Amino acid sequence: MKAVVTVMLKRDVLDPQGAAIRRACGSLGYDGVRDVRQGKIFEVELDAVDEAAARTLVEELAGKLLANPVIEDFRLDRLEA
Amino acid sequence: MKAVVTVMLKRDVLDPQGAAIRRACGSLGYDGVRDVRQGKIFEVELDAVDEAAARTLVEELAGKLLANPVIEDFRLDRLEA
Amino acid sequence: MKAVVTVMLKRDVLDPQGAAIRRACGSLGYDGVRDVRQGKIFEVELDAVDEAAARTLVEELAGKLLANPVIEDFRLDRLEA
Amino acid sequence: MKAVVTVMLKRDVLDPQGAAIRRACGSLGYDGVRDVRQGKIFEVELDAVDEAAARTLVEELAGKLLANPVIEDFRLDRLEA
Repeated sequence: MKAVVTVMLKRDVLDPQGAAIRRACGSLGYDGVRDVRQGKIFEVELDAVDEAAARTLVEELAGKLLANPVIEDFRLDRLEA
Repeated sequence: MKAVVTVMLKRDVLDPQGAAIRRACGSLGYDGVRDVRQGKIFEVELDAVDEAAARTLVEELAGKLLANPVIEDFRLDRLEA
Repeated sequence: MKAVVTVMLKRDVLDPQGAAIRRACGSLGYDGVRDVRQGKIFEVELDAVDEAAARTLVEELAGKLLANPVIEDFRLDRLEA
Repeated sequence: MKAVVTVMLKRDVLDPQGAAIRRACGSLGYDGVRDVRQGKIFEVELDAVDEAAARTLVEELAGKLLANPVIEDFRLDRLEA
């Protein structure tokens, strides 16, 4: 199975990298860009007996290795057979 | 509108960060994890007259500011009204 | 001039990416590795009338664009003529 | 011992994140900033019998876990007792 996990800074945590990209958009003339936030994405290939087991595994991993739960939110975005 | 863009290293480009996470999974006893690849994700809030305009804008931005097309692939993952 | 700025998560902020690398070191047999912390580094080429001006410029930039002062510390590591 | 390793994209590899920051500098009025390149930095705490052993260990690690030698250069920046 393939799981896709996204990790974003929590909404109330300043994201200077995203802010720099938004400003860069403006300087290139893309004035329609109002906000940019940057995060991480992980594509995880895994063996699991079923979708529930995969989901449990990925959520454990995300909390331990992929995200810092104090400042970041993670989300299991997709799970593909 | 909100656009979600993902940027991953091309398949044939080694991803040492992903490899480190896969190894860390193994050392924590998660033997079912066979591969991990790490990328970047960007959530972009933008004004656009319609979906086609938003799509064009985001694809231009991605090629100029978000990804290095020589080593990375980008994909417009979602576009939400 | 060239300024080198490093940005690290504050000591009391968990660094899951660093932790994953430390675990990966262990799984490769590098048992002497006790801790890994990952940060960002920026090499900035800039024009400035003197070193003091360069220092001021870089510290302003770092606080606005390179680091989130709530969770990260930045440091002007080197300044080369 | 503490080793500090920096990993930068090779000079001939486009760095869109660095370019975005440079543009953002311009849009904030910092016109003296001519170029920005972003890389990764790793602070590694390790046990080693002497400096030569530490150096060997860190260079092996860097080539395997910290950098992709095809697109990135790494450098052992500092080694502190």
